[in-house]
Amino acid sequence: MKKFKAGLFGLGVVGSGVYKALQQNGKYGISIEKIAVKNIDKKRDLELPNGILTTAAVEILDNTDLDIIIELINDPEEAFSIVKKAFKKGKSVVSANKKMVALYHKEILELREKHGVKFFYEGAVCGSVPILRLLDQHYKSDQVNSIKAIANGTCNFILSKMVSENQGYDLALKDAQDLGFAELDPYSDVSGEDTRFKLSIMIYHAFGLFIHPNEIPLQGINYLDENIKDFAQKHHLKIKLIGEAQEVNGKITAKVEPQLVNESHDFYNIENEYNGILVDAVFAGEQFVKGKGAGSFPTALAVLSNLKDLKYDLAVAKIAKKEIKSYSKNSKTEIYFIAGFNDNFNFQGLEVLNKEEGYILAKGQFDYLEELKKGNPDLYWVQLSENIFEELVNQEALI
Amino acid sequence: MKKFKAGLFGLGVVGSGVYKALQQNGKYGISIEKIAVKNIDKKRDLELPNGILTTAAVEILDNTDLDIIIELINDPEEAFSIVKKAFKKGKSVVSANKKMVALYHKEILELREKHGVKFFYEGAVCGSVPILRLLDQHYKSDQVNSIKAIANGTCNFILSKMVSENQGYDLALKDAQDLGFAELDPYSDVSGEDTRFKLSIMIYHAFGLFIHPNEIPLQGINYLDENIKDFAQKHHLKIKLIGEAQEVNGKITAKVEPQLVNESHDFYNIENEYNGILVDAVFAGEQFVKGKGAGSFPTALAVLSNLKDLKYDLAVAKIAKKEIKSYSKNSKTEIYFIAGFNDNFNFQGLEVLNKEEGYILAKGQFDYLEELKKGNPDLYWVQLSENIFEELVNQEALI
Repeated sequence: MKKFKAGLFGLGVVGSGVYKALQQNGKYGISIEKIAVKNIDKKRDLELPNGILTTAAVEILDNTDLDIIIELINDPEEAFSIVKKAFKKGKSVVSANKKMVALYHKEILELREKHGVKFFYEGAVCGSVPILRLLDQHYKSDQVNSIKAIANGTCNFILSKMVSENQGYDLALKDAQDLGFAELDPYSDVSGEDTRFKLSIMIYHAFGLFIHPNEIPLQGINYLDENIKDFAQKHHLKIKLIGEAQEVNGKITAKVEPQLVNESHDFYNIENEYNGILVDAVFAGEQFVKGKGAGSFPTALAVLSNLKDLKYDLAVAKIAKKEIKSYSKNSKTEIYFIAGFNDNFNFQGLEVLNKEEGYILAKGQFDYLEELKKGNPDLYWVQLSENIFEELVNQEALI
Repeated sequence: MKKFKAGLFGLGVVGSGVYKALQQNGKYGISIEKIAVKNIDKKRDLELPNGILTTAAVEILDNTDLDIIIELINDPEEAFSIVKKAFKKGKSVVSANKKMVALYHKEILELREKHGVKFFYEGAVCGSVPILRLLDQHYKSDQVNSIKAIANGTCNFILSKMVSENQGYDLALKDAQDLGFAELDPYSDVSGEDTRFKLSIMIYHAFGLFIHPNEIPLQGINYLDENIKDFAQKHHLKIKLIGEAQEVNGKITAKVEPQLVNESHDFYNIENEYNGILVDAVFAGEQFVKGKGAGSFPTALAVLSNLKDLKYDLAVAKIAKKEIKSYSKNSKTEIYFIAGFNDNFNFQGLEVLNKEEGYILAKGQFDYLEELKKGNPDLYWVQLSENIFEELVNQEALI
């Protein structure tokens, strides 16, 4: 088998993991010949051959010796520009850039086909969990009904600390930052944006439809307060930030939202930095997969497995010529939820089922809640399944 | 893309599912042209074109129009003979015959290479759970430390009924038989033999080593009694039949045995006919996958996804020329266990930690227990992890 030569963009947490793995073990049959970084003189915990680092992207992109580009930088615009140039030069690309893929998904795959190259990006979604591989290969012979995911390790870590270890949101976030699980500016994680990028990517692989992330209704965990934490603890529930999409009669709907789950739910035991995905399909029924959603080596593994896909020339399904399914930003379905509010809160339009100090249990539509939030920035909500709601009623917890 | 023509052997539960899926949906691009069955006149809940059924295997094997053989019969010897003949004729094969693959694994893969054909058998292990695909593709870029599996839906169904619904073993087995989850002769399932076939197959894909099933120490669930059920219920534990293998310094060990798990274990929520697999690997860390382990459509999905692999000409790793790992039937590690016994039972050689009416809690070696069982056919045991043992001690449950 041919020995592949690769150029690497970015030598951060994941890039270093990939580089170390390829250096230490000949079994991959791929060598990294050149690495583009922003700052050559930065101290790095890596032994590097002289002259392997460069700050000039062209030294990689124009090098006809290199077959493969491994793109592991942060900035989505810059990454997209690198990918486009690589494709033009006939190079295949492996990337772990969720934001780039989510924002330019269709353009990238069209360019991939135009230039007859390959593009794999397992590392962009849920770290070590091989969900894109499963959707592309296993579930391509089935028909996916729905997909639900805990796709952001930072949020899950914070929620674990809050509910299982009784920390406040601010302290839990600080812990996550101290341990390197959360960025100094955690907005993209805690707002749910990051989960939405990943959900948008999964939707294409599950349903064959490109949905721009901004089209997906969103609520994060950055407004959760003590009341909801106390409620969850009192009723032996856990709070999880869940991205979900389903198809009903060719119509896809999706949303990202915190939800309460009970102990019989597969998501109940997903703690800390772990991710998990539930896929429901016609033939398979329910299937669940759980693994580390981030970190140097888990994400590096996703990249390495994609490099192997390139070596083995794994077949890639073409983009469907015509989208036979449609997306509807339907948030009109009524949900049960528990919401925090301030004294000025207006309950009009909601079916209030229970009201205690600081929170209400109510029924309403997601888009109505989004509307309400505009006038009440303190409002947040956490969805309850009908099952859990009925359980609480049976326990007389809500009377 | 070329349209493939296939010949099918066996039109039972899984065969009918595969046939229906291919007929109803053109997306697979594969048509079944001929089906070999034992009895043409048997009543079937299927609309079949005239003349598609045959009792003569040669009508499929000698038909040069057919590219692919789908082998879905029960008898492992007969299946092996079909596979060998198909390979000789240059036909690739998809099978779901765990017993055949487990018993003739090395021979089949060597013949596959000799004849330059392909052979996929995802359906042989854990129904709809794509564990072989993951081991072959995802984990080939990692290094597997251990694999643990609930791989037999019949046993899991019986154990669920016993512990969660407080049924006796005999009634639970009868329920499983009434629902079609267990054969009239359930020996292969409840003895653990079926789990051992699947474990032996997974060991090759995880560690690259062929281990004959008979080399793997085995205990089934067919000796469990009320005492152990009561014990599990009292301590909020569940009993699971687990097949496991691990590598330590190039040495592989394996066993099949009932074990007690607590509620923080990923296996705790695997109920009824579901299967689940925990893989621990160097880069990925722990990963868990759960899905339906049997049934017409779940297993048909595994077969269909393999047919797609053939269409896309999925690359297959060659058998390693030299096995660099070795297997050791090492059952000398001391385990904590709870065991049932009769009055004649001799405790010599065991460290007895607790003794109540009908069972003991003790520490000892698997192979010593196997030895003891020869003289005490009533003896059975269920392993406890050190964690659970310590938890019980802390609860003063064992004093």
